[in-house]
Amino acid sequence: MLTSSNSISYHKNCIKNKSIKLLGIPFDGTVSYRPGSRFAPSALRNEWYGIETYSPYQDKDLEDYCVEDLGDVEVPIGNTLKTLDCIESKVSEIISKDSVLISIGGEHLVTYPIIKAFSKTYENLCIIHLDAHADLRKDYLGEKLSHATVIRLCHEILGDDRIFQFGIRSGTKDEFAFASSGKVKMHKFTLKGLEEISSKLSTRPVYLTIDLDVLDPSVFPGTGTPEPGGASFNDLIDFIIRMKNLNIVGADIVELSPHYDHSGVSTAVACKVLRELMLAVCK
Amino acid sequence: MLTSSNSISYHKNCIKNKSIKLLGIPFDGTVSYRPGSRFAPSALRNEWYGIETYSPYQDKDLEDYCVEDLGDVEVPIGNTLKTLDCIESKVSEIISKDSVLISIGGEHLVTYPIIKAFSKTYENLCIIHLDAHADLRKDYLGEKLSHATVIRLCHEILGDDRIFQFGIRSGTKDEFAFASSGKVKMHKFTLKGLEEISSKLSTRPVYLTIDLDVLDPSVFPGTGTPEPGGASFNDLIDFIIRMKNLNIVGADIVELSPHYDHSGVSTAVACKVLRELMLAVCK
Amino acid sequence: MLTSSNSISYHKNCIKNKSIKLLGIPFDGTVSYRPGSRFAPSALRNEWYGIETYSPYQDKDLEDYCVEDLGDVEVPIGNTLKTLDCIESKVSEIISKDSVLISIGGEHLVTYPIIKAFSKTYENLCIIHLDAHADLRKDYLGEKLSHATVIRLCHEILGDDRIFQFGIRSGTKDEFAFASSGKVKMHKFTLKGLEEISSKLSTRPVYLTIDLDVLDPSVFPGTGTPEPGGASFNDLIDFIIRMKNLNIVGADIVELSPHYDHSGVSTAVACKVLRELMLAVCK
Amino acid sequence: MLTSSNSISYHKNCIKNKSIKLLGIPFDGTVSYRPGSRFAPSALRNEWYGIETYSPYQDKDLEDYCVEDLGDVEVPIGNTLKTLDCIESKVSEIISKDSVLISIGGEHLVTYPIIKAFSKTYENLCIIHLDAHADLRKDYLGEKLSHATVIRLCHEILGDDRIFQFGIRSGTKDEFAFASSGKVKMHKFTLKGLEEISSKLSTRPVYLTIDLDVLDPSVFPGTGTPEPGGASFNDLIDFIIRMKNLNIVGADIVELSPHYDHSGVSTAVACKVLRELMLAVCK
Amino acid sequence: MLTSSNSISYHKNCIKNKSIKLLGIPFDGTVSYRPGSRFAPSALRNEWYGIETYSPYQDKDLEDYCVEDLGDVEVPIGNTLKTLDCIESKVSEIISKDSVLISIGGEHLVTYPIIKAFSKTYENLCIIHLDAHADLRKDYLGEKLSHATVIRLCHEILGDDRIFQFGIRSGTKDEFAFASSGKVKMHKFTLKGLEEISSKLSTRPVYLTIDLDVLDPSVFPGTGTPEPGGASFNDLIDFIIRMKNLNIVGADIVELSPHYDHSGVSTAVACKVLRELMLAVCK
Amino acid sequence: MLTSSNSISYHKNCIKNKSIKLLGIPFDGTVSYRPGSRFAPSALRNEWYGIETYSPYQDKDLEDYCVEDLGDVEVPIGNTLKTLDCIESKVSEIISKDSVLISIGGEHLVTYPIIKAFSKTYENLCIIHLDAHADLRKDYLGEKLSHATVIRLCHEILGDDRIFQFGIRSGTKDEFAFASSGKVKMHKFTLKGLEEISSKLSTRPVYLTIDLDVLDPSVFPGTGTPEPGGASFNDLIDFIIRMKNLNIVGADIVELSPHYDHSGVSTAVACKVLRELMLAVCK
Repeated sequence: MLTSSNSISYHKNCIKNKSIKLLGIPFDGTVSYRPGSRFAPSALRNEWYGIETYSPYQDKDLEDYCVEDLGDVEVPIGNTLKTLDCIESKVSEIISKDSVLISIGGEHLVTYPIIKAFSKTYENLCIIHLDAHADLRKDYLGEKLSHATVIRLCHEILGDDRIFQFGIRSGTKDEFAFASSGKVKMHKFTLKGLEEISSKLSTRPVYLTIDLDVLDPSVFPGTGTPEPGGASFNDLIDFIIRMKNLNIVGADIVELSPHYDHSGVSTAVACKVLRELMLAVCK
Repeated sequence: MLTSSNSISYHKNCIKNKSIKLLGIPFDGTVSYRPGSRFAPSALRNEWYGIETYSPYQDKDLEDYCVEDLGDVEVPIGNTLKTLDCIESKVSEIISKDSVLISIGGEHLVTYPIIKAFSKTYENLCIIHLDAHADLRKDYLGEKLSHATVIRLCHEILGDDRIFQFGIRSGTKDEFAFASSGKVKMHKFTLKGLEEISSKLSTRPVYLTIDLDVLDPSVFPGTGTPEPGGASFNDLIDFIIRMKNLNIVGADIVELSPHYDHSGVSTAVACKVLRELMLAVCK
Repeated sequence: MLTSSNSISYHKNCIKNKSIKLLGIPFDGTVSYRPGSRFAPSALRNEWYGIETYSPYQDKDLEDYCVEDLGDVEVPIGNTLKTLDCIESKVSEIISKDSVLISIGGEHLVTYPIIKAFSKTYENLCIIHLDAHADLRKDYLGEKLSHATVIRLCHEILGDDRIFQFGIRSGTKDEFAFASSGKVKMHKFTLKGLEEISSKLSTRPVYLTIDLDVLDPSVFPGTGTPEPGGASFNDLIDFIIRMKNLNIVGADIVELSPHYDHSGVSTAVACKVLRELMLAVCK
Repeated sequence: MLTSSNSISYHKNCIKNKSIKLLGIPFDGTVSYRPGSRFAPSALRNEWYGIETYSPYQDKDLEDYCVEDLGDVEVPIGNTLKTLDCIESKVSEIISKDSVLISIGGEHLVTYPIIKAFSKTYENLCIIHLDAHADLRKDYLGEKLSHATVIRLCHEILGDDRIFQFGIRSGTKDEFAFASSGKVKMHKFTLKGLEEISSKLSTRPVYLTIDLDVLDPSVFPGTGTPEPGGASFNDLIDFIIRMKNLNIVGADIVELSPHYDHSGVSTAVACKVLRELMLAVCK
Repeated sequence: MLTSSNSISYHKNCIKNKSIKLLGIPFDGTVSYRPGSRFAPSALRNEWYGIETYSPYQDKDLEDYCVEDLGDVEVPIGNTLKTLDCIESKVSEIISKDSVLISIGGEHLVTYPIIKAFSKTYENLCIIHLDAHADLRKDYLGEKLSHATVIRLCHEILGDDRIFQFGIRSGTKDEFAFASSGKVKMHKFTLKGLEEISSKLSTRPVYLTIDLDVLDPSVFPGTGTPEPGGASFNDLIDFIIRMKNLNIVGADIVELSPHYDHSGVSTAVACKVLRELMLAVCK
Repeated sequence: MLTSSNSISYHKNCIKNKSIKLLGIPFDGTVSYRPGSRFAPSALRNEWYGIETYSPYQDKDLEDYCVEDLGDVEVPIGNTLKTLDCIESKVSEIISKDSVLISIGGEHLVTYPIIKAFSKTYENLCIIHLDAHADLRKDYLGEKLSHATVIRLCHEILGDDRIFQFGIRSGTKDEFAFASSGKVKMHKFTLKGLEEISSKLSTRPVYLTIDLDVLDPSVFPGTGTPEPGGASFNDLIDFIIRMKNLNIVGADIVELSPHYDHSGVSTAVACKVLRELMLAVCK
């Protein structure tokens, strides 16, 4: 067969396993600095052929699981509100307790409508948030809907004591004060501290949102707002694998901006993170 | 004096001459392909120091005229409607018959609120439109406000027989049909035909909108939607100089996307186009 | 529908029209200078969404025709001989008088197995060859199978008076002597001279091979061996359109090397050339 | 207000605090390998808007201090001697015990005239020097004034036991022998060892010169002479913060070469280093 | 003397010391992902002038030793079999117990003919293999000769218990199973474990093959198949220095692909690795 | 033979023919905008292997002539005066009526010491100057020795009526006035007008200086000060060939800046210009 499907799908054990569904969300409308994360879902699919299906980190192989690539949400370019509605309704339609939905941004604001949808299905939903930036602003240049406000928006939905941040190393004084006040639990600078919260999370449904700029820009320059001083690739992979005993019900990977990834390394990193994430949530 | 002001301003003959006002509009929210024209106003100011003030093409020197750089309109990122309002109200505030306002996009949709403002001040306003793309769609992926619909939106304001297009070489069948039906006067492929319309325009107020992708991508790769087969730099300069007998009341230069301009040549081109344009409208 | 198929296909009038079949051939094994044309078929498909289906040059729309994208030939990397066999057998399997096969290289050597297959189906086959380079060497660094020998290899199959070259501006003294001796008809430097040969070709089956480096590197830098002094984009489009009265039975577009196309313009050029070529051969 | 001033300035507490003065020195005339650090001061100012004023590392905010950007020294291009004179006289004019002058190179030779000026104002001046290269040559290709001789030149002014080097991992055998002989105190490879010298430095006036190539090129590729095996971003930030009990009277950041910083990450790193440095010396 | 020889040669102590011979092998014919390692030997020679001859890591200076650059093997482009023969016969001709041959790839398959030649001269030859990839496939897309099969091919020559791998972090399930079965000794993920095998290797002849993608792509993006999660530059240098008590009889450095090294850092890394490697094997 | 000499030399007919001598001058110390032409001589030699020795434009082959590459002048980095002295004395040493010296810059100021040397050997020397910029300033930012003053400096040596400029499209009002006053003969914008001066030049010794930025930046982006609106590659080749009846005694090619030549096309252009120039002056 000649035609390549350009889709990240594996079908071996779709009956036995809980499946993974992949959804691309090519939206970057509120990015304040360098736009272009709209190109991420297609970059990941294009470069996927360079990725082995087997992970020596987890000794598991994607070909033994069930992954279905649902393609991209269509976004009405230039219309943020309508875009968020499209995402929410698409996600609501897909959500099912038999599968784990992993979304590929796009910018970080896409997590907001996803959480809106997930919070309706999963009571007591918690968020684990990996990021260089706190994303806790009340507004950004007057706009409430922004990739810089997204976790604050999620906090409005979920309330206190539900959001656990890791790797945060940039924000305004107010954002750090918001975290200090206890509304969210922020682990600054590194990815350390997962153990502390594991018992708290126990079997509660957890949504994992990974802003890839949590990584150091040496290994991940291809992002809108590179922030030096971040995690290494191995730090992130370790974190993901250590999470696998939690009850991950959904996840996203956001803020790859392929046009700033001249060497192609950032896209390769994103592909491997996605592979390890899929294998970690596969049961 | 040490501090550089990073502003394109000249003050020699501000009493004697009609002045030029420059306004940056760093908006690229509806760009469907490669975003980044938001960085154009700042790129032009940064690279301006590489430009001679004297033009051998027109034998005139910017230092003999009066140019005031008003800086950038602040745009609420991610909010297209509010952005258009900000632009319209800013432009309305600036417009004056004693000066010519030249706006620096940003994407092409910025022309729409500008024309809204200009059409209130200037009766019988006509548009000369240089572009690779017809920009005559009714909507783009369901959105009416788009850089692909902007000239159609202007037509809604001004009506038939007011818009004169040059260099158009891309669009849908419907867009070309719209032009053929006589609603706008389209000169396809090249910048030829200005003479034909000069008598028609005579002393009527003319707004000139230059989408820089009218140029061939060999000389102007740094744009969102490069379209091979375009005008040469000399074609464009000639056109601008030949226009100087018309009554140009305002103008814009849009769609430079500096992050796709790896060699810096596109920005240099935009600077020289701006210089020739300013000198052509200087009286 | 969410999933994008990443395939260049149109199905409106597949009964009425002679169809076009597209075949990618991602092979660049004999490239002596800068490799990477193996990435061209996938680059064209990825960037195709930026192309309008309507051509103002020919006033025709791809959506009115029948185009079937057959995907890529699988090539055994590092094995030139087996690769050429795979191509020849794949092409032989596809060739049909009801359709026109357009192949997307890859490097120029892919034309050799294609011509082998075509020459079995079409008696009296002629080749129109657009290129910066003569490609008439007997061998290249001792190898007979090379992108620098491909037209000489085709001559061995077809014999004298069958190959018509345009745009040639580089080669060894021997290659130019070979052409002067009358074995092939070479038009140097430009694309002029099609008229002279039109009557000679008349209704004979013609295969068109376009090495995109026939274009000037200002508009097409993304190629393995950029050769200054070439044709403009409009020259090439004009040539293609003027060819439409000939009996084109097959064609190829080779030597786009996307990794040297930092601005993306070369890929955009290749897409538009492909569009015009498809529309020109559509009946 | 529309106009952006393109200047790194904060004015909140200019009465209460010791102020910081910033001076750009766009000189790269003796760079032997890849030139372009002349563009660094303007690159830092252009990208400054992407930097938060608040530092979670130090829990301090630039907006609470007093920073005055004095713009750039004008340098006579191509004339090294006159340039050094201009720098020395400009710095002499600015130096004041009420402020800390932070200079932004340019290449490392700029430190020489600065030290000339500082050594006149501050008795017992010591230098802390972070760099990949020893910069202790007697001459470079016959020239005594060079970015490869700058610390040797400073040693000629200050004498033995005044210069403390960190991170050095490249040089000639002679340079390392010069250091071993005890004329300067060199800490090889890493930034470890500050504690050892803290008591020695105590309250003596310290000038800090940071050649940014002390960082590993993975995080800082945008420099003239990238030298693998360097410090991480966090190493450097830690070093700066640990220095804050010393009596820093002046500092510089040199050798960012923005045109080799394709991803923009090196400029982002330089901005953050400058922020942390300013906050560390703010009293 | 004006002419630069563009050759990495030092001649001071050619009588006293065992010499080093350098051989470039510009072959990348079986690379499956991003080609271009053919340009590595010439890139290393071009950038060599930026490298100090003195190493502070080993306190040794190349100028005190004897290094002879033999230039490049000529490779018949597009002909893998003939290329491997050329390499084997060239290497056989050069091998001598009075010198250490260091080859500069090109892709990793070049190690296969080298090992063929070395195994004839050195009984009991062992291989130390640093790489991100296991390179233990039986075939790659049906081809037995591939940069993905090269260590498996070497295993066919040398047999069990002779190959020691470090840094491996990518491969198929089968490749890892092959290693687990004890045919080769694989150290996964890091360069740790050299001590364990030192006594086993003792005075046996050791060939060292370094696929530079063993390094993390943050510091070495310029390679065909960048694989996140690798060794740091200092890890690699440490490893090389710790090896110096072994009986290294030959070595290679492969898979630098300079055209993907936009910042030039990867080439600088390769130069320094080569310097340290030469100094480590110099006696 | 394995070693490549990296030198542009041909030795077939060194007795019969007047020889060509090549000299690299890697100096860019007074460049005001983007430095890096220091890398041009080495870039030309590195990429020379991609150039055919045969020219179809002139039907001549370099292999039939005598070309000797003398390598590079060593320049003391950062010392403009000493550099100019080195160039002048090196050139004086080489000049001979039996050969034509072609120098490869470096920046345009290198022409000044060359003309100093040539004017001593050749009475009545004239200059043909191809450039985008007039280079007729009296000083540049206070410096008399600059790439922006070089032709004015040459005028000081040669006097009126000796300098013939082509392609000039940028400069200050004063520079154009200087030309208008008749001191030099300036042909603006294009390369037209050689015929007018041919009889005047007749058999007088002519030095040709080509600033490659006379070319349009679409085909030659890799230069320090790209200036849109320039000559095409074919315009320049035609000019060079039409000059071949003049008595060219020396020439230079300046201002290629390879680090701004991301696509490699500018270097390819410079190579071909050099080939045609060598063939045009070969007798």
